[in-house]
Amino acid sequence: MKCDDVKDKIGRYNFVTESYLVDFQGMIPIPMLGNYLLHAATEHAEARGFGYRAMTANGLAWVLSRIDMEIIECPRMSQQIAIETWVEDVNRLFTTRCFTVLNSNGKPMAHARSVWAAIDLATRRPTDLLGRADLIAYIDKEKECPVAKGGKVLPAEGTPGIPYRVKYSDIDVNRHLNSIKYMEHLLDLFDIGKFKSQRITRFEIVYTAEGKYGMDLSLHLKEVEGDTKYLASICDSSGSAICRAAITWV
Amino acid sequence: MKCDDVKDKIGRYNFVTESYLVDFQGMIPIPMLGNYLLHAATEHAEARGFGYRAMTANGLAWVLSRIDMEIIECPRMSQQIAIETWVEDVNRLFTTRCFTVLNSNGKPMAHARSVWAAIDLATRRPTDLLGRADLIAYIDKEKECPVAKGGKVLPAEGTPGIPYRVKYSDIDVNRHLNSIKYMEHLLDLFDIGKFKSQRITRFEIVYTAEGKYGMDLSLHLKEVEGDTKYLASICDSSGSAICRAAITWV
Repeated sequence: MKCDDVKDKIGRYNFVTESYLVDFQGMIPIPMLGNYLLHAATEHAEARGFGYRAMTANGLAWVLSRIDMEIIECPRMSQQIAIETWVEDVNRLFTTRCFTVLNSNGKPMAHARSVWAAIDLATRRPTDLLGRADLIAYIDKEKECPVAKGGKVLPAEGTPGIPYRVKYSDIDVNRHLNSIKYMEHLLDLFDIGKFKSQRITRFEIVYTAEGKYGMDLSLHLKEVEGDTKYLASICDSSGSAICRAAITWV
Repeated sequence: MKCDDVKDKIGRYNFVTESYLVDFQGMIPIPMLGNYLLHAATEHAEARGFGYRAMTANGLAWVLSRIDMEIIECPRMSQQIAIETWVEDVNRLFTTRCFTVLNSNGKPMAHARSVWAAIDLATRRPTDLLGRADLIAYIDKEKECPVAKGGKVLPAEGTPGIPYRVKYSDIDVNRHLNSIKYMEHLLDLFDIGKFKSQRITRFEIVYTAEGKYGMDLSLHLKEVEGDTKYLASICDSSGSAICRAAITWV
């Protein structure tokens, strides 16, 4: 299996899931699946000249704005998976990057679409991506991403919040709350019984502001459709959402 | 570089540290270093016939009883590291497994010694390891592990505790608080300023009981020697420690 050919628009990365990273049912949790996707994205961008190193050297950083994941079958312990990732589109402020997670027989287990901005590290403002020929050259509009495009995620604010203070282990190299940790804290709002009787088929998360060390946040969860559709959000101390999620279970 | 030859007593595993796993200073946090060590241990045991799969098939599980880590230089972002691991000794109830973390020039960055019991999954009691010829055959007494043997870790209990309830994301496939999560919760007791001005040179942790989902725990931290030596512990709701740690900073 070809691992990663820089001439290709699509990068392919192999992983073997590890026993200490699975949840109590031996399944890869959504945040860990997110980690694999981000790892594939990092490698893909790095090999093509628009990764962390190149961006940092130019005073820029990629910031994840949203990700919509659809899970057909959750990867299990010690399973070999491959992740394909490619740039789906680039517009002025955002680029979309898609993912397919495949099992060892090449059967899709999950799909995802992510939206990224390139911020200026000094001003923290998004930069214009239409000038980036290096990135645009890699757009692949032919490869299909079957994830339904995510719309506005409605608020879960207004429900009673569970307090959470941002800790050392939550902070990434950009000195902000790690994107994956937002997912982890929101999923922790569900009782473990939920994970035993149902599974997540769609997880949408929209990041609107950066969580910082020591911030006092509140975590909110709201059931919207029986026991299958939930909204969740993380708010800062003024009550403004710094992220919102929509979670679908079957 | 040889990756892993099952004839060898010493296994060697290569990792490239990933950007989303480093802390706010671009350094691999102690819990993540612990993850790498456990991964190397898992692979080493699996390839030699006494890993998770073989154990589970026999109704057994390896349980980490303690780990003593000495860090010379913390691995940084996107760095290539290799981890060597081997079985140092086996006695009736425990086996000791050592580790050396090497940089790409083969220079040691960290050493660790871990102590494991093999419990019977039905009774949760430790089993006799002296009958395990498969494990004993791999003892390597020649390879040196320069980690000072850990003694009793004194209690931090008695200090005011910070409450913590065990969540979905804390639970591993054995349905108990993940060994690495204990480390994470204890390190989160330190202010981020500590990580800016000092670094951890020795981290000892002793596990005495299993944390379970929903348990109400308390986290304790006690300064014992200026700003360099600390004790930390996690207690259950009766006040008994389920783990104790000693952390040395320079």
